[in-house]
Amino acid sequence: MAAPVLHVLKPPQTKGHASVVHLPRHWFILATSAELGKKPIGRTLQGTPLVLFRDGEGKPGALLDRCPHRNVPLSAGDVAEGQLQCRYHGWRFDREGVCKYIPSLVGEADAKARHAQSYPTVEQDGFVWVYSSSRADAEAPETMPYRFAKASAPGYTTVRQVVESPATLHATIENALDVPHTAFLHKGLFRSKSRNITIEAHVTRTKDRVVAEYLGEPRPPGIVARILSPSGGTVTHFDRFLLPSIAEVEYSIGTENHILVASAMTPVSDFVTRIFAVVSFKLRIPGGLIKPFLHPLALAIFKQDAEILKLQTETIQRFGGEQFASTEIDVLGRHIWRLLKNAERGETSGDEAHEERISLVV
Amino acid sequence: MAAPVLHVLKPPQTKGHASVVHLPRHWFILATSAELGKKPIGRTLQGTPLVLFRDGEGKPGALLDRCPHRNVPLSAGDVAEGQLQCRYHGWRFDREGVCKYIPSLVGEADAKARHAQSYPTVEQDGFVWVYSSSRADAEAPETMPYRFAKASAPGYTTVRQVVESPATLHATIENALDVPHTAFLHKGLFRSKSRNITIEAHVTRTKDRVVAEYLGEPRPPGIVARILSPSGGTVTHFDRFLLPSIAEVEYSIGTENHILVASAMTPVSDFVTRIFAVVSFKLRIPGGLIKPFLHPLALAIFKQDAEILKLQTETIQRFGGEQFASTEIDVLGRHIWRLLKNAERGETSGDEAHEERISLVV
Amino acid sequence: MAAPVLHVLKPPQTKGHASVVHLPRHWFILATSAELGKKPIGRTLQGTPLVLFRDGEGKPGALLDRCPHRNVPLSAGDVAEGQLQCRYHGWRFDREGVCKYIPSLVGEADAKARHAQSYPTVEQDGFVWVYSSSRADAEAPETMPYRFAKASAPGYTTVRQVVESPATLHATIENALDVPHTAFLHKGLFRSKSRNITIEAHVTRTKDRVVAEYLGEPRPPGIVARILSPSGGTVTHFDRFLLPSIAEVEYSIGTENHILVASAMTPVSDFVTRIFAVVSFKLRIPGGLIKPFLHPLALAIFKQDAEILKLQTETIQRFGGEQFASTEIDVLGRHIWRLLKNAERGETSGDEAHEERISLVV
Repeated sequence: MAAPVLHVLKPPQTKGHASVVHLPRHWFILATSAELGKKPIGRTLQGTPLVLFRDGEGKPGALLDRCPHRNVPLSAGDVAEGQLQCRYHGWRFDREGVCKYIPSLVGEADAKARHAQSYPTVEQDGFVWVYSSSRADAEAPETMPYRFAKASAPGYTTVRQVVESPATLHATIENALDVPHTAFLHKGLFRSKSRNITIEAHVTRTKDRVVAEYLGEPRPPGIVARILSPSGGTVTHFDRFLLPSIAEVEYSIGTENHILVASAMTPVSDFVTRIFAVVSFKLRIPGGLIKPFLHPLALAIFKQDAEILKLQTETIQRFGGEQFASTEIDVLGRHIWRLLKNAERGETSGDEAHEERISLVV
Repeated sequence: MAAPVLHVLKPPQTKGHASVVHLPRHWFILATSAELGKKPIGRTLQGTPLVLFRDGEGKPGALLDRCPHRNVPLSAGDVAEGQLQCRYHGWRFDREGVCKYIPSLVGEADAKARHAQSYPTVEQDGFVWVYSSSRADAEAPETMPYRFAKASAPGYTTVRQVVESPATLHATIENALDVPHTAFLHKGLFRSKSRNITIEAHVTRTKDRVVAEYLGEPRPPGIVARILSPSGGTVTHFDRFLLPSIAEVEYSIGTENHILVASAMTPVSDFVTRIFAVVSFKLRIPGGLIKPFLHPLALAIFKQDAEILKLQTETIQRFGGEQFASTEIDVLGRHIWRLLKNAERGETSGDEAHEERISLVV
Repeated sequence: MAAPVLHVLKPPQTKGHASVVHLPRHWFILATSAELGKKPIGRTLQGTPLVLFRDGEGKPGALLDRCPHRNVPLSAGDVAEGQLQCRYHGWRFDREGVCKYIPSLVGEADAKARHAQSYPTVEQDGFVWVYSSSRADAEAPETMPYRFAKASAPGYTTVRQVVESPATLHATIENALDVPHTAFLHKGLFRSKSRNITIEAHVTRTKDRVVAEYLGEPRPPGIVARILSPSGGTVTHFDRFLLPSIAEVEYSIGTENHILVASAMTPVSDFVTRIFAVVSFKLRIPGGLIKPFLHPLALAIFKQDAEILKLQTETIQRFGGEQFASTEIDVLGRHIWRLLKNAERGETSGDEAHEERISLVV
């Protein structure tokens, strides 16, 4: 009941930027196809509460999660005759947010003030994608969502995983694509201790992406590598960030092994990011043998990352913002930052292509 | 320990009004007579912490719940020799807030700076009423609290109930007097599904109240109606809002059945309202037969309302305020709103009387 | 997930001061020597998160608890080769905050932007003291921390106790040195009911302290006095506040009994104060007989104080600040206030010495 109290005693407060970004006019995954059944579900996208439901034909719709009448969340309601029905007075809405029916009312239900804001939706690759600008705020989308290229490719096995990262979109993407922490934080699990080999990262940034190719990388001796490629071979390794929020890690070991980890990140709120990860692989040994190990291993790695990201978030909140000192081996972080900030301002073109080469010890 | 963090990612924020009102110079129930015994009790009225206690003669007093000395809440103390005694240093206060005794002090306890703010109180109809302006802030009240007319009338049975609504005063009153939601939200329990009968509401607003009389209403077929009037009969139905916070629902079914539900609402804080309900009825069948059913039925209905009101409040808070679209069948809501806003500004007169007729389907 | 909501309904808000002070360039205890082992520990001083660790020689260091790289708290890390090592990427820092090593980096780790802020530390009397201004913000300290004079004096028995007070530094110090509440709040436990004896307090304030000598005080009849001095005798009683945060209570009963309770207070945050208390005594009866009773008695007294201080803090927060009415028997409170406020502004000199005599009934 007590009102919030101003804190007089504070740590030195960070001035300037915060890494939280708001990205209008982009597609994000709000649910898996399987999660969205006959009941509407509530989701949050960039701080905005949305309700997802399926109409009479099973097509997904997304509305602002607030009944225009008395502001009860529509996600607490039901679907009736293919329309989303509020639980308080029974108002009903279609996929475009038009009010179609009001119980007890004599006369027409439809009226401009009674519309709920609606958002374009696409169901693709087993996910429900929602556009981050409402139909009232932006023109119909000219783009389509990202495709998970290998998810249904012949010869590939695919594993899906949804996890929640207690961190900003930027921190989550950087973590997913950061090489140096793997040898330290995930010691033994993912990479082993440094073998003092100097490798080179070749970085290329274009208007909507940044790609790092790692050259000279030896086959890692960790558990993952041993499972994936018992026989060794040359390693090809690409890390990619694609606007607005896709992280790809792609490995080839020898000619027979190929693995692509594609993660679509959804900025839920300032410091919560949902990760929809799709791991597709083709290996020397049958995928069915690997699959049972992949899931617990991925979760063990993510658990270590999530703990660190939570500590990072708490510290950033405590100091009123982040203050990062970087070195050149933070290979992709500052490029991701730049691309996100440009996307926030709507400037995805006009930025010149950029290349650089970086050495690091692994 | 972490300082509160500004949220960058927010839903569209509501501009303009919030339905929270502050009503000075009005009477509100802070406790039932039975709740206030020998120990002082803490209560909150419109966000202000108050302490209630009984002096040596049993008369209730209400003070600001903060010792003027070192700001310990007086409700944590005791009554000693008919005075309210602070638990930290033992300072004692009378019903007017005058400091009468300070342990260890050589000399007079009484001094202007040592007074606690005090509020006029009246005990009536089994309730402790407190005036919402302190003796320092306003003249002695010229009005008396609302009377529960039928609470002790001959031939009537009375049931009392205290519940807490997780919503603003406006939302709680509107919910108590709203007809359309009863057929939808309380389906089967209170009213049954629509029978497609068009009835008429005759609304009259004067300076301190708004009344709706419902004409042409059939005897409802729900459980409540069956219990109250097995034989049927013409229905007379009035809904009334009386400033500052009384909701009355009055039904007559035939000539032998009369029921009055009078609810005095207390605005505890922005989004918490306490409801002191008094149900008085005179029926064809003995009241004693009905009484055991009334209590659980009323609580079942209120549980459904409280769930919805909580969802409404959470959504309003999330969007930074409410944004309501109304139709004409929101019969009393906008009049209640207008009367509350006038009362907040102290303008209870000067507003012309208003009449209207509204059709709705039940 | 909901954003914080502005409260419209509030109690009368206190204008003017809050008793929270920020005291730069002073020494405070952040841990006992025993608490700081091989693992780094996180502590908060005046709202600022710090990490304490011991280097290769066992010397304590204190850094801002935030890795300059990606803002993970350094207290979540480890000590490696005498340096504090971040858990995320393994960056390492020495006691002065210099970055000594970055895994995977080709080239020098040390660079100005990669330094962590560091704070002077001293280990003394079994406590780790930290200076409240960082090396970057202030010159090297010219003072040394307070000494617990009798902690290792011959003939004295010493008991240590660490407790946390849910109150401001000012409220905690005033409570520790306040005489009137002991007879009321700690009735029977510490002092008994008033015997109606008038005593005199002789108060002397100089630039860095205020001292009250109590004259004419009878031997208290409570349990404490009975344990400490079964035979009675003249009572000498001094209460002292020494900047920045030391409270001393000193009693002599007769010639054979001497007890000094010295409490070093650490302002953790606005409304949390840690108390490091050292009780040293020399008595007619062997200290070993007393020692087992002292601990539970002190905790029983402190429990009563902590409950009251928590209620006080909640009320102050609710009303947006404190509003205290004092009498002359609040002997030291307003002097402590004045000294703290001067220390906050850096004015510890220039304030004239002050003397006064006050009567109070015990």
